[in-house]
Amino acid sequence: MGPLNQFVVDLFGVMAYGELSAFERLSSDARFSPTLRDRAALGRLAVTEFEHFEMVSAHLAGLGVDVEEAMRPFQASIDSFHERTRPADWYESLMKAYVIDAISGDFYSALAEHLDDDTREIIARIQSTAEQGGLLQPRLKSALSDDPRLASRLALWGRRLVGEALTQAQRVGIERQFLGGLLFKGSSADHERQTAQLFAQLTRNHSRRMSSLGLTA
Amino acid sequence: MGPLNQFVVDLFGVMAYGELSAFERLSSDARFSPTLRDRAALGRLAVTEFEHFEMVSAHLAGLGVDVEEAMRPFQASIDSFHERTRPADWYESLMKAYVIDAISGDFYSALAEHLDDDTREIIARIQSTAEQGGLLQPRLKSALSDDPRLASRLALWGRRLVGEALTQAQRVGIERQFLGGLLFKGSSADHERQTAQLFAQLTRNHSRRMSSLGLTA
Repeated sequence: MGPLNQFVVDLFGVMAYGELSAFERLSSDARFSPTLRDRAALGRLAVTEFEHFEMVSAHLAGLGVDVEEAMRPFQASIDSFHERTRPADWYESLMKAYVIDAISGDFYSALAEHLDDDTREIIARIQSTAEQGGLLQPRLKSALSDDPRLASRLALWGRRLVGEALTQAQRVGIERQFLGGLLFKGSSADHERQTAQLFAQLTRNHSRRMSSLGLTA
Repeated sequence: MGPLNQFVVDLFGVMAYGELSAFERLSSDARFSPTLRDRAALGRLAVTEFEHFEMVSAHLAGLGVDVEEAMRPFQASIDSFHERTRPADWYESLMKAYVIDAISGDFYSALAEHLDDDTREIIARIQSTAEQGGLLQPRLKSALSDDPRLASRLALWGRRLVGEALTQAQRVGIERQFLGGLLFKGSSADHERQTAQLFAQLTRNHSRRMSSLGLTA
């Protein structure tokens, strides 16, 4: 397997494990929802993550790749990300789903730009069914507008989530050469600059989303 | 709403909450699976429960019934059933899914015989997608044949599950007049006899399933 193919396998591997674990965390959190309706809503988000996991798994299997093998390198760091970002309640769960889905989506799309049509297409397909933001954003916004203490708690939580997520993305990137010479052109100084640009872009998008919730990022 | 309609709403309400809570429990348990493949398999089972929850919810909504309202009367007793039957590991989770799905399926089908075509049809539709037994049975069987200590532990666990489930079904039945004059014809002595027959049938089917796993029920 060439280095670019290994990169694609890694990309789908990290997506698959990210989605499987997001499914488990969200559905475990669902029980603590304020109402049965909110439980069902969080359950639906969780199930959508599982459906993405199944899409990515099917794609990997189609490439002749063992899904477990592809996920394994990312298990420890994603588990540790979740351990460090345990939501204290339903609102923090919702916020975590919103922040992490959006930032992962941006990250995968940015990487996909450098990849083949098939890969881009499956990533786009997942994004299009991941219109969860559409469901989460108004629910979060209405909760926040009613409750300034919740707003300041969730603003802090949002900053912590994005910090942990970017640290994690960088660590995975270094370990697996995600952002290295496979994707970017030019010298190693160029790679660093391009990586910095990507992370700056992710942070800007995150800030914009927080602002649209009425929060300071 | 006439008594028979209230009965139908109750039946779908208990099914909906049973499926929503099974989804949450199974998906929380998934993290403790021995392998990533097993985690994905338990996740799939959980998601199927959620899909059934959505089918039943859509049906209730179509009848003009508020899904939350319909589920609420059954929340406490189903939660308490789950509290009393917490799986100690992945095998106990699997066994719980197998035993409870099968026995609930039998129970709902038996009740549906007395009901209108629409109700029977949706219950049959759920049963047909609930062919989880087909997936669980061989996985359990192969685990059990390798490990006599596991077999004796799961035999005990199966007895506890069925005992708790039947106690629960009886309690819900009495509270909500599930098995009362709405369904059965004749005098109150006839109702008692018919209820006893139904429970004997559920127990026989359970024993048959345990035997097919090589366990003593």
